[in-house]
Amino acid sequence: MLRPWRLNIEISRTANKAVYLQIADAVIEAIKSGKLRSGDALPGGRRLAENLKVNRNTVIEALEILIAEGWLISRERKGTFVSEKFRLSEQAKLLPVKPTTAHIYFDDGLPDARLAPMKELSRVYRQLLNRNARWQMLGYNSGLGDEEFREAAAQMLNFNRGMNVSSSQICITRGSQMAMFLSAQCLIEEGDVVFVENPGYKPAWRAFSHAGAELVPVRVDEEGIDVDELEQLLYKTPNIKAVYLTPHHQFPTTVTLSTSRRIKLIELSNQFGFTIIEDDYDNEFQFDQRAFLPVSSFENAHKYIYIGTLSKMVAPVLRMGFLVSDAEFVKKTGSLRKIIDVQGDSIMEQAILQLIKSGEIRRHMKRAIAAYKVKRDFFESLLAYHLRDKVEFKKPDGGLAFWIKPRSGVDLFELNKVLLSKGVQINTPDKFSFKEHIYGIRMGFASLSESQLEEGLISIAKVI
Amino acid sequence: MLRPWRLNIEISRTANKAVYLQIADAVIEAIKSGKLRSGDALPGGRRLAENLKVNRNTVIEALEILIAEGWLISRERKGTFVSEKFRLSEQAKLLPVKPTTAHIYFDDGLPDARLAPMKELSRVYRQLLNRNARWQMLGYNSGLGDEEFREAAAQMLNFNRGMNVSSSQICITRGSQMAMFLSAQCLIEEGDVVFVENPGYKPAWRAFSHAGAELVPVRVDEEGIDVDELEQLLYKTPNIKAVYLTPHHQFPTTVTLSTSRRIKLIELSNQFGFTIIEDDYDNEFQFDQRAFLPVSSFENAHKYIYIGTLSKMVAPVLRMGFLVSDAEFVKKTGSLRKIIDVQGDSIMEQAILQLIKSGEIRRHMKRAIAAYKVKRDFFESLLAYHLRDKVEFKKPDGGLAFWIKPRSGVDLFELNKVLLSKGVQINTPDKFSFKEHIYGIRMGFASLSESQLEEGLISIAKVI
Repeated sequence: MLRPWRLNIEISRTANKAVYLQIADAVIEAIKSGKLRSGDALPGGRRLAENLKVNRNTVIEALEILIAEGWLISRERKGTFVSEKFRLSEQAKLLPVKPTTAHIYFDDGLPDARLAPMKELSRVYRQLLNRNARWQMLGYNSGLGDEEFREAAAQMLNFNRGMNVSSSQICITRGSQMAMFLSAQCLIEEGDVVFVENPGYKPAWRAFSHAGAELVPVRVDEEGIDVDELEQLLYKTPNIKAVYLTPHHQFPTTVTLSTSRRIKLIELSNQFGFTIIEDDYDNEFQFDQRAFLPVSSFENAHKYIYIGTLSKMVAPVLRMGFLVSDAEFVKKTGSLRKIIDVQGDSIMEQAILQLIKSGEIRRHMKRAIAAYKVKRDFFESLLAYHLRDKVEFKKPDGGLAFWIKPRSGVDLFELNKVLLSKGVQINTPDKFSFKEHIYGIRMGFASLSESQLEEGLISIAKVI
Repeated sequence: MLRPWRLNIEISRTANKAVYLQIADAVIEAIKSGKLRSGDALPGGRRLAENLKVNRNTVIEALEILIAEGWLISRERKGTFVSEKFRLSEQAKLLPVKPTTAHIYFDDGLPDARLAPMKELSRVYRQLLNRNARWQMLGYNSGLGDEEFREAAAQMLNFNRGMNVSSSQICITRGSQMAMFLSAQCLIEEGDVVFVENPGYKPAWRAFSHAGAELVPVRVDEEGIDVDELEQLLYKTPNIKAVYLTPHHQFPTTVTLSTSRRIKLIELSNQFGFTIIEDDYDNEFQFDQRAFLPVSSFENAHKYIYIGTLSKMVAPVLRMGFLVSDAEFVKKTGSLRKIIDVQGDSIMEQAILQLIKSGEIRRHMKRAIAAYKVKRDFFESLLAYHLRDKVEFKKPDGGLAFWIKPRSGVDLFELNKVLLSKGVQINTPDKFSFKEHIYGIRMGFASLSESQLEEGLISIAKVI
């Protein structure tokens, strides 16, 4: 027998959310709260539409999404039911898609997907996909990306980041990792030495190692990479090819490379002939004073590869990055890219281009930066309240993460283990350290909700 | 002064095309036909909406698309105008986006983008993008692709192609080129020999060369790669690593590798220990009898890498491929993929998965195969009518291209030059040949319209 339908869904015609999504979310809420249970049958689409006083297609669209996301299952000729996956006691905690083991994961600084301008993105995707005849016209490009898109990227870099580049110096990639891979493959030969920050960003290191590079770590302090140590190492190292660094909000320590060190680094590059690989992974999130201009924008910086991402400006799920260097090197990366991947995602490039042209990206970034600034300050106050005297940290002037050192010297691997049993997860030092573990936790604050941030910190406070 | 508005747009509420697209297409037609000229002003959105008796937002959406595609330009406080790009005499021929030099390009067998189920794709994209909170949940995956998607791919391969594989043997990639690149990088060491078909598919060769392989060409006849020649070469070649081939509709000659040669190839693979790299790039387009089962599906084929694409099943602009091999090798490709690209396009994987689950892909493929079969037969009749006695060809039993040899022995590079001046383009032998040019033209018939096919062949008939 079917259980009675006991949902009261209030539909708002003026809300900023489509009606079918309001219905879908109401059903999800009902499942999470236990009002609807595993195996419960839903009324038929027609009856549901009458009850809710909406078009039947709207109901069908809501049901489709719920089925696709695994909340409901459809049995032929029998109807639609709440998925068997949800057992009552656990119901509130369950996620139907890829449940993570940790309930609260302090990631390394991912943006908040909820802020992304998905409605606008969805609109331009719809327009683009509906113009299918258009795609017939799109030939294969040079592997560097859509020309108009690269023009827009060059303008943005010149206008906002003090660069002086043309579109021929830009290669659009699928996320910054591909920019790293292409750079490594085109720059490095077996046995070349690449200096890296320690602690630093390991996925980039892997791209260099894969290309045959030998990595040499350089220490990082409160002014960023230690250029004096670097200089000493340069004098005694053969086969110097490049220095890879994250000058703006160093990863993971969040410090900014000081101007004097930037100048010294460029001098060393010119003296020893190495390439500066500058990974400017979160340039756009600056809260207090103006962002430092990239090392690559300095007039006397001649050998550089500047790498960035556009994903964070739009939506983290859209992976798009870029690399900037001299035109000859960029051409080389384009040729390699054709072998790896032919070219980028034309629809995505067109979609983002339209959002840039319409000003939507600019408006979104303004809103996002304001929201992240508030969240950073909130996270700081949480740290001060719950972990006063227990941790050391410096409020970062930008970026989406804090670098935190527990004063107790507690073993961070042990800490993570204990936290995991409480549904909280942190990143352990092996994620950032070259060999010997460097003490500290990089805690992203952007992707978690305010209550998750507080709950997570309370759990940590109880342990250390 | 503004020119008078002289468009009669008939809006159909029952057409299978959204109203804003009907308006946009009517404006494009008017520009192409010369009714609207460069610099012409359009009436304001409000007036246009009144004239057409549609909602003002609908008009705005139509204008946005026309501006985005470059047909119109918007000048602040002045209004909307036909783009200056269109000069009257040329107007009918001009495409606003990426004009190709050739009007009619016989490509190497691309599908018809107009057949793609874009409406359905657009619908699932909208649903997925609107669920932005959902993306927060999606963690990074193993680099092999979404688990559920790989399950679906394994099912498809086992059910339709006689394979016997599990999801752990599949890596989803961005187009088959990336599958080729990953395979090459994980399989080949400097100096290894890879045998290739001659003529053959050069973009794959580049992936092997880049990984350090030495390529050795093997001739192709009407039964596919010549396995006897291959055998002789095997006896005198050191460092044998792999044979790369396109057994199903050989690229470019469209012949199918005979069963006896398939069996011989597998025996040679087991005897000499080389890997069979099987590129099954258009398995799904089979018109007459059943498609041959892949070499990789034979029970005694032990060392194989099977590569395919999903792009052609959905829409050519969506680039998605896969590779299949033993689980250990596939794991290696997944690790490398994380260095290159982190992971695939989660939205696209989810979108295509939904179209697979809803049966839309199956329905689309049925329609598409029926349409391509008609088009193949039509192209054959055109060849017989316009080029009788001038060319030799065999009607392919599948695939989206013909292999054609002019009897006159005309220089194909010269032919292409003359044709280009008439707005027609063909692929020259350098695109397929190892060194010495092999005589023949691969002519794709799917992406061109019936009238383009005829117009193109008439141009060729006039020259040879």
